[in-house]
Amino acid sequence: MTITLDDARALDRDDSLGRFRDEFLIGDDPVAYLDGNSLGRPPLRTLARVEDLMRREWGGRLIRGWEDGWLELPEQVGDRLAAASLGAAPGQTVVAESTSVNIFKLLHAACDLRPGRDEIVATDTDFPTDRYLVESVAAARGMTVRWLSPDLVVGVEPEDVRAALSERTAFVLLSHVDYRSGALADLPTITALAHDAGALAVWDLCHSAGAVPLALDADGVDLAVGCTYKYLNGGPGAPAFLYVAERHIGAVRQPITGWWGVADRFAMGPTYEPAPSIRVMLSGTAYVPGLVAVDASAEVVAEAGLEAIRAKSVALTSLCVELADAWLEPHGFRVASPRDPARRGSHITVRGPGARAVADAMTQARVIPDYRNPDMIRLGLSPLTTSYAELWTALDVTRRIVEER
Amino acid sequence: MTITLDDARALDRDDSLGRFRDEFLIGDDPVAYLDGNSLGRPPLRTLARVEDLMRREWGGRLIRGWEDGWLELPEQVGDRLAAASLGAAPGQTVVAESTSVNIFKLLHAACDLRPGRDEIVATDTDFPTDRYLVESVAAARGMTVRWLSPDLVVGVEPEDVRAALSERTAFVLLSHVDYRSGALADLPTITALAHDAGALAVWDLCHSAGAVPLALDADGVDLAVGCTYKYLNGGPGAPAFLYVAERHIGAVRQPITGWWGVADRFAMGPTYEPAPSIRVMLSGTAYVPGLVAVDASAEVVAEAGLEAIRAKSVALTSLCVELADAWLEPHGFRVASPRDPARRGSHITVRGPGARAVADAMTQARVIPDYRNPDMIRLGLSPLTTSYAELWTALDVTRRIVEER
Repeated sequence: MTITLDDARALDRDDSLGRFRDEFLIGDDPVAYLDGNSLGRPPLRTLARVEDLMRREWGGRLIRGWEDGWLELPEQVGDRLAAASLGAAPGQTVVAESTSVNIFKLLHAACDLRPGRDEIVATDTDFPTDRYLVESVAAARGMTVRWLSPDLVVGVEPEDVRAALSERTAFVLLSHVDYRSGALADLPTITALAHDAGALAVWDLCHSAGAVPLALDADGVDLAVGCTYKYLNGGPGAPAFLYVAERHIGAVRQPITGWWGVADRFAMGPTYEPAPSIRVMLSGTAYVPGLVAVDASAEVVAEAGLEAIRAKSVALTSLCVELADAWLEPHGFRVASPRDPARRGSHITVRGPGARAVADAMTQARVIPDYRNPDMIRLGLSPLTTSYAELWTALDVTRRIVEER
Repeated sequence: MTITLDDARALDRDDSLGRFRDEFLIGDDPVAYLDGNSLGRPPLRTLARVEDLMRREWGGRLIRGWEDGWLELPEQVGDRLAAASLGAAPGQTVVAESTSVNIFKLLHAACDLRPGRDEIVATDTDFPTDRYLVESVAAARGMTVRWLSPDLVVGVEPEDVRAALSERTAFVLLSHVDYRSGALADLPTITALAHDAGALAVWDLCHSAGAVPLALDADGVDLAVGCTYKYLNGGPGAPAFLYVAERHIGAVRQPITGWWGVADRFAMGPTYEPAPSIRVMLSGTAYVPGLVAVDASAEVVAEAGLEAIRAKSVALTSLCVELADAWLEPHGFRVASPRDPARRGSHITVRGPGARAVADAMTQARVIPDYRNPDMIRLGLSPLTTSYAELWTALDVTRRIVEER
C-alpha cells in the first residue's frame, strides 16, 4: 500500500529542510514543479540581491562598482560556491561564461596538461554539448576519442573506463550524473583509475552540483565544470563554474586569452601574461548581476548543507520510485533510474508509451516534468523546494493521465 | 570667452534629447558622470524589465519560460540591437557571451573563411583583449600578424592599412573607435580596401555602438563584435553582440561547438549539425536576465535614434574640447583626441602631468572620469544621459584641481 496525501503532508511537517521552501518565490502555478533539475526556483534573496545590485550598485556607484568589488566576483563567488557545494578549498574555482565555453576551455587545458598523449575517453550518451565539444576539440588537436556507450540505467562503470584507458589517454571527460537516467558515476574510483593510467579526470557536474555532495579536493579531481541554474538556483542561463585543482594552477592554460585572464588587467601590457592563479581561466568581462545571483543562491545551499540536501534527495527519489512502481508501472511506465539510491542523483526517469503526450498532459494540468527524446519523462526533485506533498500530487495527476489513456 | 554654467543650462533646455535623461536612474552622486563610455547608466525600463523577468517569468513560468520565448532571445535581441544601432538587417546578429569570447569566435571564423591566406592585419595599440586574442589565435592557426602602430590622436589611417594588405592577408581586425583617444577609423574605406585585397574586414565596435551611427550592411562589413555596457547601457558586463554578414552565413563556423549552435537544440542528435543561421555562432545557454537587459536598453537607443545621438555627441565633445583648451591647457593638459568631430567618437582624452592624481581628485570630488595609463584622462560623453551642465561642472571642478596643484 502506497502512502496517502496525508502521509506526504506528515513527511513535510517533519522535514528539517521544510523551512527552506519559504526562502523561495513560490506561487500557485504550477501545482507541482518537478523540473528543478533543469531550472531551479528563485530564492527570494537572489531576487533582492540582483535588484540591489542593479539599483544601488550599478545605478549609484556606476563605474566605481568595479573597484568596490565587482572585479573579484568571479573568484569570490567561485570560492563560496566551492565551499557550499564542491568540497574544494579557495583559489580553484571561478564563476563566469557558459558551461559550454568552460568545457571548451577545460578540454584544451587538459590536452595541454598531458602533451604527447592523443586519446580522450568520453561517453556517446553524454549531454550533447559535451559530446559536440569533445568531438571538435579532439579534431582540432589531433586527438582520437574513445567513446564508451554505457547502459542508460546503470551509467558509466569503472570497469569500462579502465578498459579504455592506456598510456595514450590524455584525459577522461564524464558527467557525474547522467542527464537522462540520473545514474551517478563512481567519481572517486574513476578518478583514481584515470590517475593510475597517468591521465586526468575531467568532470561535468551540471546534474550533481547542489544536489549530491562533492569532494573535488579529497577525490583528486583535476578539472571540473558545471552549471548553476539547476539545483543551485542561479536563474535561467546563470554563469557556470569551472574548477582547476591547485596542483595544475601555474601550468594550466586555455585558448580564449582575453584580458580578464592576465595577472594585472589594468596594466594593459603589450603581451598576454597569464595570471598565476585560477583567474587564468577567465576571458572577458563577467556579467555582474549573474555573479551576484549565483552568490546569493549558493548561500541558500550553504545554509541548508549538502548532507541534509542529499538525505532529503534520497528520500524524495525513493518515494518517487515507490509511487511510480505502484501507480505508473501498471500502465506501462517503467522507472529507468537506478533503484539503489547510492547510485543515482536527484531525478527519476520513467519511460513508457506516448511519453511525449503524457508529459504534455501533465504540463497542461500544471504539473511540470521534463521530457527527453525518445520517451523519457524526468521527474526532478529539488530538495530545498520540492515538498513530499508536491511530489505526491504530481504522481497522482500523472496516474490519472496514464489511466485515462 | 568660454560659456557659463547658465549657457550650459540653456543648451540643456534646448536639447531635443534632454527628456531621455528622465528615462534613466540618476541620483545625486556623482555630481558629474563622464564614464558612460565604460559603463552606461541604468535605464529605468531596464531595471523594471529585469525585475519582471526574475519575478514573473523565472518565478512564475519557471522552465516554461524557455518555450515562452527565452530560447529565441539571442537572435531577437540581436535583431533589435542591429536595427537600433548597427545598421544591419535581421538574421545577422546575436547577443550572447562576453566580447572576448565573441572576438575569439570571429578570429577563428575569419581564418576559416579565407583558407590559404596566412596574415592578419591588426594594431598594436588596440584594446588589450583584442591584441591578446589576435596573438594567440594567430599562433594556434599558424598565421602571422602584421602589426600597425597608428598615432594616438590620428588613429589608424586607410593608407597604412592599404600598405599592409596583400594576397596573403586573411583579414583585418580593427577597432572602430580608439579606446584611448576616441579616434574614429574610416570604416567604409578600410573595409573596401580589405575587400580589394580579397581579405575580410572584422570590426570591434565596443567604443562606437550606441554613440556613432553604423551601417554594417551598407558598408559591407564582414564580421563585427561589440559590447553593450558602454553607450548601450546594458549593465556591468552585459552580454556582447556579434554580427556576421548574411553572405557568410551558411559557410561561417566557430570552434566552441556547443549545443546552442545546432540546427535543432532538442533533437540532441549524435553529431554537431551547425545551424544554417546566425545561431551557429552561439555555444552555450545564454543568461536570460542579461539578454532582457540589453533588449530594454537598446530600445531606449532606438527611440532616441542614432542620428540625434550623434548630433548631441558632436556638440558635447566639441564643448568639452573648447573647455579643455580654455581651462586645462594653461595647466599643461592637452587634448589628445581628434579636433575634427568627424574623426572622433564620443569621448575626449586629455593628457598631462600627474594625470593619475588629477583623476583621483576628480573622483574624490564626485566627478567621475576614466583613467588609462600612462597619463590619459578620458571624458566620456553619453548623449542620452550627459547634460551640458554636467559637462560644464565636470570641467569646472577639473580646472580647480589642476589650478591648485
